[in-house]
Amino acid sequence: MRAIVNISLKQGVLDPQGQAIQNSLSNLGFNNCNNVRTGKQIILDFQDNDEEQVFKETEKMCETLLVNTVIENYDIEIIKEI
Amino acid sequence: MRAIVNISLKQGVLDPQGQAIQNSLSNLGFNNCNNVRTGKQIILDFQDNDEEQVFKETEKMCETLLVNTVIENYDIEIIKEI
Repeated sequence: MRAIVNISLKQGVLDPQGQAIQNSLSNLGFNNCNNVRTGKQIILDFQDNDEEQVFKETEKMCETLLVNTVIENYDIEIIKEI
Repeated sequence: MRAIVNISLKQGVLDPQGQAIQNSLSNLGFNNCNNVRTGKQIILDFQDNDEEQVFKETEKMCETLLVNTVIENYDIEIIKEI
């Protein structure tokens, strides 16, 4: 079973990497884009097949290690078939 | 309209960051996880509301700037309502 954690910066937190991407896109002629934000993705493969169990464990991992909850939001997606 | 680009390393490309996360999780007592990979997410907001147009433009952005197609895979997700 696979858990995908999407981590993004909270609203109001500056995102210089996103700003740099937007500037580069603009320099290349892509001007339709009015906002760019970046995020991280962490993909975890589990041996366990209990969806609830995997979700709970992933949540615990996020809170202890993976996510800085002061400045970051996260969501967890569970995929049964890899 | 919003486009989300998920970028991940291709199979076979070493992912030291993922390896480091897996080791740290293991040290913290999370031993159920047998593989960790990391990826990037780029979230682009468009003024344009034509789904096909936005998809095509995002694809072009990926090929020219956002993705290193030698070592990375990507997929594009379009969200109509932000």
